[in-house]
Amino acid sequence: MSRCAMEGCDPDCQRPRLAGEREDTSAQVIRELVEEEMGGEIIEYRVVPDEKDEIMAALIEMTDYYNADLILTTGGTGLAPRDVTPEATLSIVDRLAPGFAEAMRQGAMAKTPRAMLSRAVSGIRGRTLIINLPGSPKGVHENLAVIIDQLPHALAILTGREGDHG
Amino acid sequence: MSRCAMEGCDPDCQRPRLAGEREDTSAQVIRELVEEEMGGEIIEYRVVPDEKDEIMAALIEMTDYYNADLILTTGGTGLAPRDVTPEATLSIVDRLAPGFAEAMRQGAMAKTPRAMLSRAVSGIRGRTLIINLPGSPKGVHENLAVIIDQLPHALAILTGREGDHG
Amino acid sequence: MSRCAMEGCDPDCQRPRLAGEREDTSAQVIRELVEEEMGGEIIEYRVVPDEKDEIMAALIEMTDYYNADLILTTGGTGLAPRDVTPEATLSIVDRLAPGFAEAMRQGAMAKTPRAMLSRAVSGIRGRTLIINLPGSPKGVHENLAVIIDQLPHALAILTGREGDHG
Repeated sequence: MSRCAMEGCDPDCQRPRLAGEREDTSAQVIRELVEEEMGGEIIEYRVVPDEKDEIMAALIEMTDYYNADLILTTGGTGLAPRDVTPEATLSIVDRLAPGFAEAMRQGAMAKTPRAMLSRAVSGIRGRTLIINLPGSPKGVHENLAVIIDQLPHALAILTGREGDHG
Repeated sequence: MSRCAMEGCDPDCQRPRLAGEREDTSAQVIRELVEEEMGGEIIEYRVVPDEKDEIMAALIEMTDYYNADLILTTGGTGLAPRDVTPEATLSIVDRLAPGFAEAMRQGAMAKTPRAMLSRAVSGIRGRTLIINLPGSPKGVHENLAVIIDQLPHALAILTGREGDHG
Repeated sequence: MSRCAMEGCDPDCQRPRLAGEREDTSAQVIRELVEEEMGGEIIEYRVVPDEKDEIMAALIEMTDYYNADLILTTGGTGLAPRDVTPEATLSIVDRLAPGFAEAMRQGAMAKTPRAMLSRAVSGIRGRTLIINLPGSPKGVHENLAVIIDQLPHALAILTGREGDHG
């Protein structure tokens, strides 16, 4: 079972889900897809403000301390001046994995040309794959659906649970 | 109305259009698409030689001094040794926006596989979106047509005139 | 005639082909495509271990000393911790040429969604185009087939044998 973590950006830094609230938040979409489509377990969830240093710190803790196999971020990938999740991600990965971000933009653009505005990146820190997702539940679903079938094999290779000939 | 600027590379540094000349230059194609399809205004136009430092200086002046919302460059994106517009652009942006360049290559390749040779990049400096276009009028048209419908919304978010949930 | 070179990564650093062996190795697929589809000549072939420094040294020697027009690497582009060919490539190129890698992932993904796992990059050092290919013969064939028709023109522009208006 893959150990997955989520990082969400929120300008007001409020947790998006409280008991009894409707559950159609981006975090809930990620949780459902990870658990039901990937058979993964969400081991940690953070909501941090749109500050590069704070996002970097959250990503580093979830990789180096929690040893997540996969971190899915949501939000902060747009063009607004406060959107810095890709920059935080690029600052802490040691290898790029551009195919996931490219595939998501290409797949999402087939439905919504506006998807070309996403600045999402994807890369690797140690043995953790980090993938940026958009902030909206609809965007999360459209993007994650494009790549989720490939994630179990990707994580198996990255973590050494499966051989590869790449 | 969006404030747009153009930067053109020319090995001989000649202005491509003089009074009375035919107007099918790349600059004219950009001007028409920006004015007619985007309702934008061209506030500045520079032709600089294929020198990285000179391109950087022109981009910095058009962002920091002219406060353009959008800069469209034309030329210098090929494989020839003199082509350094992407390198100049990467040197002065503070955030990448890879979706525009990816979408243009993907869209143009559907018509002309040779479009894969384009080394164009797209990024953000401050509140200015900078997008590299090829040098030929045909290439400019094929590439700009792929993204132009998304530019008004992109610029509205980037400049803070419109909210976003990315 | 284009002067082409190959670099292959191999965990055990064994030459993949000995006299009398079956010839369906990745190197053989590259050789056939380069000679038959491009009319190119393989001037050098190296197999190096999956070590960033050794890959960098091989790429530098094949560009700066052998003056190859094109270097095709095979292997080391996956997600496994030992896969560092893209990092070695990025460290020694002076200009990026992202369209080849994007086109290969997009083309290969149409057949095999798993192609999104490829971390291949493409760039230029001096007057040498360097393109990463996957490690498997099937992956090499699927990826190289997407771009090979564009390579003669690309190399002619890069090496100055042909004019360009990019």
